[in-house]
Amino acid sequence: MLNLTSLAEQILPTGTKGLALKAPIKQTDIGAQNWNVLNGDTSFPVAVLKQSALQHNVEWMKRFCEAKNIVLAPHGKTTMSPQIFDMQLSNGAWGMTLATVTQLHIAHRFGVKRVLIANQLINLADIKSALHLLKTDPDFTFYAITDNLDNVQTLAKAAKEEGLTRPLPLMVELGFNGGRTGCRSIAQAMTLARAIHASPYLSLAGIEGYEGLLVGKNRTEDLINVHNFIQQLRELTKQADQEQLFDGGSILLSAGGSAYFDLVANGFADDQHWSRPLISILRSGCYVTHDHGFYHGLVVEMQDREPVGLLPALEVWSMVQSRPEPDLAILTMGKRDASYDIDLPLPIFTHKLGSGVQPTPLPSGFKIEKMNDQHAYLRIPKDSALCTELKVGDLVACGISHPCTTFDKWALMLIANDNYQVVSAINTFF
Amino acid sequence: MLNLTSLAEQILPTGTKGLALKAPIKQTDIGAQNWNVLNGDTSFPVAVLKQSALQHNVEWMKRFCEAKNIVLAPHGKTTMSPQIFDMQLSNGAWGMTLATVTQLHIAHRFGVKRVLIANQLINLADIKSALHLLKTDPDFTFYAITDNLDNVQTLAKAAKEEGLTRPLPLMVELGFNGGRTGCRSIAQAMTLARAIHASPYLSLAGIEGYEGLLVGKNRTEDLINVHNFIQQLRELTKQADQEQLFDGGSILLSAGGSAYFDLVANGFADDQHWSRPLISILRSGCYVTHDHGFYHGLVVEMQDREPVGLLPALEVWSMVQSRPEPDLAILTMGKRDASYDIDLPLPIFTHKLGSGVQPTPLPSGFKIEKMNDQHAYLRIPKDSALCTELKVGDLVACGISHPCTTFDKWALMLIANDNYQVVSAINTFF
Repeated sequence: MLNLTSLAEQILPTGTKGLALKAPIKQTDIGAQNWNVLNGDTSFPVAVLKQSALQHNVEWMKRFCEAKNIVLAPHGKTTMSPQIFDMQLSNGAWGMTLATVTQLHIAHRFGVKRVLIANQLINLADIKSALHLLKTDPDFTFYAITDNLDNVQTLAKAAKEEGLTRPLPLMVELGFNGGRTGCRSIAQAMTLARAIHASPYLSLAGIEGYEGLLVGKNRTEDLINVHNFIQQLRELTKQADQEQLFDGGSILLSAGGSAYFDLVANGFADDQHWSRPLISILRSGCYVTHDHGFYHGLVVEMQDREPVGLLPALEVWSMVQSRPEPDLAILTMGKRDASYDIDLPLPIFTHKLGSGVQPTPLPSGFKIEKMNDQHAYLRIPKDSALCTELKVGDLVACGISHPCTTFDKWALMLIANDNYQVVSAINTFF
Repeated sequence: MLNLTSLAEQILPTGTKGLALKAPIKQTDIGAQNWNVLNGDTSFPVAVLKQSALQHNVEWMKRFCEAKNIVLAPHGKTTMSPQIFDMQLSNGAWGMTLATVTQLHIAHRFGVKRVLIANQLINLADIKSALHLLKTDPDFTFYAITDNLDNVQTLAKAAKEEGLTRPLPLMVELGFNGGRTGCRSIAQAMTLARAIHASPYLSLAGIEGYEGLLVGKNRTEDLINVHNFIQQLRELTKQADQEQLFDGGSILLSAGGSAYFDLVANGFADDQHWSRPLISILRSGCYVTHDHGFYHGLVVEMQDREPVGLLPALEVWSMVQSRPEPDLAILTMGKRDASYDIDLPLPIFTHKLGSGVQPTPLPSGFKIEKMNDQHAYLRIPKDSALCTELKVGDLVACGISHPCTTFDKWALMLIANDNYQVVSAINTFF
């Protein structure tokens, strides 16, 4: 269990985005306010996480990992929410994955004990502040990755200068041509592995890669590339093990975003003889809320390969702010409130205040056409009855595509039950 | 002066984005840390505001408004920063413009006394929390806008129910066909003006419009449309005044984003006889930091009409995190750190740590090709010496296009002098 008391006990001031407060309240008292999104009790826009879907997703992923004999270090950069980290760790997660030293400090602040930093640490000031955690908290561990010999030397020097009493555990990153970071060949990666193993200030903990960017127009080709990349990761791990370069009690092998976690889990299935136990680590982050867009599409494809049961948990609710033209509604929601980097938000429900306990699904054809900083333009199909029936003050819910870029727009998000009764809230730290 | 002491005195924890802290520090002590961005003393990415450019912009705009006999209620949604609001108000701003009730509460919390809410207030819970401020703080005023008769009735009813002892001041919004919010005709707007004037709970304070969205492909046509729209706003104001519908001691007439503030200022120039003093209000927000992209382009056009002297004040600095291919550098900066909604960030400087007091301008041809959540892909021209010379750990600075969507990614931004010495910090509230 993480240390979440400070969040529960904090006072939320008037002007807390998503809440329509006349006076400050304690965060832990949110559930007692008897707020219902469908009654207009919150501010709009408001970001709503469906409790049942969140719970379903963490439990589903736990069973999936158990069945595949793989562990999960979910990417925390998606939510940066201590309460969601806590749900994930309580449901069997091995540790958290994070992207930056800033995020590492936030996770440590709330009591996360094991972190995989899925990026190379570069800046000496950041490196030193990260090493300071290893030095001062013996219960805390993080693993960093590297793809560069100069970087290995920088890290070794920093670990020496900070006076670490245990070696800094590193994973070598393998990449692919045309990709992002990571060594472009096994030979290059082996050079790094040897240098890490040779340093008294560093230890080689494992091998890491990221296949999640292999999403192109030719999906058959993408799958072949993912498969080949996973094999390359295994091959590198095998060669490093044969040279006895791994220094820990186990070998860490990690890949896996939210797009291909089934292929990674199956590809890492272990029929090999290793010098010590192999721990295969998935790093999916977006599974926890899933979405109505990009990841929904990828999981629909995944269904052909593996039954996947993730549910979209995140919705952004706004109000119709203006009805200037019959087929145009302006919503109180903009670029400050919902993702727009992969797709614009996807209108899924409408609701008239006080008209019942469930919202009305919107048929296809409704579309967010564009967004400004604080407004969205909802285009209504010209043959829809809503051209006349949708009024100023009606609610519109949007699903989103790519949860990461909605989480970072909300310091506080509400948790609601299936009837949109608000039961609690989570915090994010960006 | 706003109440900024609580911000100066707050403790910044480790994990504060942009800072590489080993231990918490008080915000007011930032200037004493002797941090220099060019020495790698901060975390990377880090958002940097250039003090001299900020100061120049607020002073330039003050002189501009004085010369044009117009007042400024800068749109605070751009920065949502009390320290920047304070700079703007100390440099003659008449009040602040804001977009939402959430933003209204934040401005009120820090002592802003006069706010123009450039949106229709819709949600009853939000309306009541806003009216509560009018009721409990006699020194505080806000003006809201409306384009809808139902909304006028809702506001009158809410003002009555909350027991306001002064009428709620409203401005009627005029829009244009194909635009966003606002009445689509003067006749429609006059109906609202009469209804507001007739209500004992409301007062008609003025007329409002927003021309800033008239940015299309045909720039000549855009300028004609802006000109015509300004004339429509004046015509509506004239008709409402002739019917003696305005209830305040003056008549407020407001338009003006950051794209056409010169045309608005000139178009509002007052040669008319009004029943009471006319206060023309500009609402530009982005002028305060200006940018290297979208607004830079608009102001270059503006130079043909009016000498405008705004300087770009906002830069996002990152480090080269990986050099996987000769013409590709991966930077420690992503969608979480810099605007990407109009243009991707614009690489402007590079710097090797410890190599002097000024960074090296990047020639044209360098381009951020794409961004992930936490990474940017910098493409280096194939004939550039930097294909070999740009190393992991070197700094790259990017200008941005559209400051609003960078401000909302940073809860704390650093203020630096012209040598990138960090002198202080500002906070944002999103």
